[in-house]
Amino acid sequence: MAAIAAAAEVSVPTVSRVLNGRSDVSTETRLRVESALGELGYARASRRKDPPSRIIDLVTTELSPWATEIISGTSKAALAAKCRVAVTVIGGDADVDHWLRSLSSSHTDGVILVLTELSAPHRKRLGALGVPVVIVDPVGQPDPDVLTIGSANWAGGLAATEHLLKSGHRRIATITGSPAILCSQARLDGYRAALERAGLPVDPGLIRTCDHHYQAQFAYEFALRAASDLLRLPDQPTAIFAASDVLAMGVYEAARLAGLRVPEDLSVVGFDDVPMAQWVSPPLTTLRQPLAEMATLATRTLLNGESTGIQQRVELATSLIVRASTQPLEQQPAGRRRGKD
Amino acid sequence: MAAIAAAAEVSVPTVSRVLNGRSDVSTETRLRVESALGELGYARASRRKDPPSRIIDLVTTELSPWATEIISGTSKAALAAKCRVAVTVIGGDADVDHWLRSLSSSHTDGVILVLTELSAPHRKRLGALGVPVVIVDPVGQPDPDVLTIGSANWAGGLAATEHLLKSGHRRIATITGSPAILCSQARLDGYRAALERAGLPVDPGLIRTCDHHYQAQFAYEFALRAASDLLRLPDQPTAIFAASDVLAMGVYEAARLAGLRVPEDLSVVGFDDVPMAQWVSPPLTTLRQPLAEMATLATRTLLNGESTGIQQRVELATSLIVRASTQPLEQQPAGRRRGKD
Repeated sequence: MAAIAAAAEVSVPTVSRVLNGRSDVSTETRLRVESALGELGYARASRRKDPPSRIIDLVTTELSPWATEIISGTSKAALAAKCRVAVTVIGGDADVDHWLRSLSSSHTDGVILVLTELSAPHRKRLGALGVPVVIVDPVGQPDPDVLTIGSANWAGGLAATEHLLKSGHRRIATITGSPAILCSQARLDGYRAALERAGLPVDPGLIRTCDHHYQAQFAYEFALRAASDLLRLPDQPTAIFAASDVLAMGVYEAARLAGLRVPEDLSVVGFDDVPMAQWVSPPLTTLRQPLAEMATLATRTLLNGESTGIQQRVELATSLIVRASTQPLEQQPAGRRRGKD
Repeated sequence: MAAIAAAAEVSVPTVSRVLNGRSDVSTETRLRVESALGELGYARASRRKDPPSRIIDLVTTELSPWATEIISGTSKAALAAKCRVAVTVIGGDADVDHWLRSLSSSHTDGVILVLTELSAPHRKRLGALGVPVVIVDPVGQPDPDVLTIGSANWAGGLAATEHLLKSGHRRIATITGSPAILCSQARLDGYRAALERAGLPVDPGLIRTCDHHYQAQFAYEFALRAASDLLRLPDQPTAIFAASDVLAMGVYEAARLAGLRVPEDLSVVGFDDVPMAQWVSPPLTTLRQPLAEMATLATRTLLNGESTGIQQRVELATSLIVRASTQPLEQQPAGRRRGKD
């Protein structure tokens, strides 16, 4: 210690404070001590003796644009609390197994499951570890004693459809995830409610549901097929509410292949507002999910302990972001196909 | 131990093997023991005594679509080795400070820096920790003793431009990152080399460089402005090589705003092949970076130790993925603007 203190030109107690990871040391001093440690070959040994800093495990089935925003928000919220975020992408049951094993021989301060459904045995194993868990956007009805965080999906579906109704559209189709998934069911019900409140019939022929909409590539391909079908109907829709931004991308491509332009010939609304929504052409009108806020809430709940008086299910508000993929029906050309100008 | 063994209906040595994280226990048996531990309230205590499993730290300045693919690849490669991946998104120097502090009071088996340039003091602090480091796509010339992994950017720029040349294009513009960044310089030089090999002059007016192309939102906005400028030139380009998929999105939107269609009126090639490239309309022709392979190599290098005989700089091959955003010049309408059919 004396040698290190001499090399770093600080006192021995200061070296001790750095070694113990205390926060009452300036960055410059810490740097000098750590450099001296490195030069004298002590770095690794000293590091291993320190108590572990905090770490949260985030598990998702896919790094979709949506899940990426949750990771980004979690990382930012955790970093402020000097906590790291371990990200695990689960492809199947074997991966869950690997992950649970690494947990049982290590430490975690909490687990965030992102749109991930664990099997009953895996849930039991995770429960046996005694680690706090928060679920972001549950796939099905989760255990009643687990906190879930989502956004106001029903209100979002309602707002998306009402935006199209206010623009004069009457033939409005929707492409959404499987009703077996809670958030999809809620968005679809919001769509139905908007039509009913406007006194319009709900045409089952204008509703297409995709079984695996949370797998982005699958969702895209489903939406491309479903929208192509819808645009071939004799009384085709003038607007489509796609219940995710990736589904909306499939609608864009179906329109292009049918020789239709967005928004001149077809209005499209998405859901999520992932970064891609600003970059696609035309920029996508969409329902913004507060993904960063959902992630921050999940992280703080885990780091502050479970007894924060928080409810079992939290829903954060969505908001309509109007960009260039929607326009009033009256601006659509009468013939509706090609031949603008 | 005897109580746990009785509750789980296994032998005491089996309980011991589970507690020690040994791999010679079946999943079912492990599950039974862990459940028994949980029911008897032992879980947390036993977990904390276990040796830490392995963990890699991945640091990036932004969760761009590109960085997301690196994270996905790292997570998959690490999971197979029962290693977790801590993801930290660094917004500024204060964040680097937080992260280095959490490292110095914790453990990491290695660090992957993704397109992230640390300041000299931060590099020194990281070096003092004695942790192995791999850089994926260095921003500038990295320390000569640090392994860097990238893709063959020069060859990719060459292949992208040659694809357009083979399709008959002669007025080919490029929008690329700052030459101060190694990968951008290499892609731009590949573009120049293709033109020179075809005996065509390099027109500086057709080259636009973006200072912060690795910040996705900034890159998009730059490309939108730059492509709008290019499309207003008297002798406008018939094709644009955008040196990232996000830059290509700006080109798409500039074309739409100018009343031009991709690929009918303008061919576009991107670079990266992030998932979004398949979903945009039209699907983007692009140079595929082997992002998963780059991530796998970085992970294995860290986990297997540094002395794997690997070179200091590794470049993996890129490949051209032809989709729907390019077409032969001869198929462009003579007038080039609007009025297809």
